Amino acid sequence: MRPKIRLFVDQPLGAEQSVQLSRDHAHYLFGVMRQSVGVEVALFNGIDGEWRAVVDEAGKRGGSLRCVAQSKTQDVVPDLWLLFAPIKKARTDFIVEKAAEMGVRRILPVQTEFTNAERIRQDRLQAHAVEAAEQCGNTVVAEVAPLRRLDEVLRDWDPSRQIVFCDEAEAGGSSALTGGLATCGAVLIGPEGGFSDGERARLKALDHVTTISLGPRILRADTAAVAALTLWQHGVGDWR
Amino acid sequence: MRPKIRLFVDQPLGAEQSVQLSRDHAHYLFGVMRQSVGVEVALFNGIDGEWRAVVDEAGKRGGSLRCVAQSKTQDVVPDLWLLFAPIKKARTDFIVEKAAEMGVRRILPVQTEFTNAERIRQDRLQAHAVEAAEQCGNTVVAEVAPLRRLDEVLRDWDPSRQIVFCDEAEAGGSSALTGGLATCGAVLIGPEGGFSDGERARLKALDHVTTISLGPRILRADTAAVAALTLWQHGVGDWR
Repeated sequence: MRPKIRLFVDQPLGAEQSVQLSRDHAHYLFGVMRQSVGVEVALFNGIDGEWRAVVDEAGKRGGSLRCVAQSKTQDVVPDLWLLFAPIKKARTDFIVEKAAEMGVRRILPVQTEFTNAERIRQDRLQAHAVEAAEQCGNTVVAEVAPLRRLDEVLRDWDPSRQIVFCDEAEAGGSSALTGGLATCGAVLIGPEGGFSDGERARLKALDHVTTISLGPRILRADTAAVAALTLWQHGVGDWR
Repeated sequence: MRPKIRLFVDQPLGAEQSVQLSRDHAHYLFGVMRQSVGVEVALFNGIDGEWRAVVDEAGKRGGSLRCVAQSKTQDVVPDLWLLFAPIKKARTDFIVEKAAEMGVRRILPVQTEFTNAERIRQDRLQAHAVEAAEQCGNTVVAEVAPLRRLDEVLRDWDPSRQIVFCDEAEAGGSSALTGGLATCGAVLIGPEGGFSDGERARLKALDHVTTISLGPRILRADTAAVAALTLWQHGVGDWR
């Protein structure tokens, strides 16, 4: 039987490997979930796949587990990044959760001209990405990058990574994303107010940017993020 | 300038047409939003497009508006329905909001073998669909149907409406949705536990059902709904 509890640990996993529990994990496992010595838990660390591990020691402030057998090899996810402008808290959390669930490797919050957010809680967003991976059975955890200005991100961009720019002002539809794109890519979603004329002109002038529209209706930023990631995975990624 | 406030009203709209405000709308418009006589509001009713209207009377329990000019003709959305198994409250609300935003015409909550929900609040879900249309600028409001059992819905189904069945157990990927589907369609999303073997066999035996997979990772039901609606709009609907 598959263990019901699945935890991300930042430690090596392997046969007979011992794993120390953090205070938070010990509180969750023994306090909240009422587990004890002998119970099996699934562990993953983003590198070594998923392992079944058995609880050896259980305490209020910590505990230890021992890896028994690998239950899943490490997943390889497509090389996809998401660039998005932070919006209201709940919807920003949602975008990170969904991107992590959909197998995005790296999530880059960007500050655009129409973005209100001047800072994000990077640690909290990273915790959301970990939680999404724990709950969805992924062995890969999306990395949340610090907030940076879009113009700086574009200035330092490696042009071999193709950007799919979702532009509300574009009339052409979504069909530009059906094929021919590099398998190393990124999706860029704007804030609720869209992009400025300057940002739009700069993006469209770049050879490594492909502009698409997500249909004739205005979508909220969180809906647009899931829709654009879907089209990329369908056309270029591992849903084919 | 576009009016900032946009309301759905269940009344005819047209040149010089007078519109009575409900108590709830009067409370929102004059109490919460602090508007008064002379202000312009956008109105839509799902039939007559969007109209600019000016407030003629403002009271605590009601008020009236007069239509000035049509600001948008009525949208025609593709003939797409969403069938989904209700899940936890917040995620069910989210599915309805997203479907309304993405231009779905009809939202049908269905009870599958692995669905826990025995009832839904149809009126509350309909209100969510209205709110999504108000906020996103759509002139069409998705209709939320009552909860019915999946087997009954399938028994009474018009076979000219093709169902895209999103099956977690399917290995084939999402490419079956790239073309050749009828433009009168529906997307079917299961509950978190997926479909039973019996349901799966019954669906796959139907000529008007196309089975697709939404990639190698398990998606939550709300993510799956947005992803499947995206693929349909991209391949068959009005995003092309």
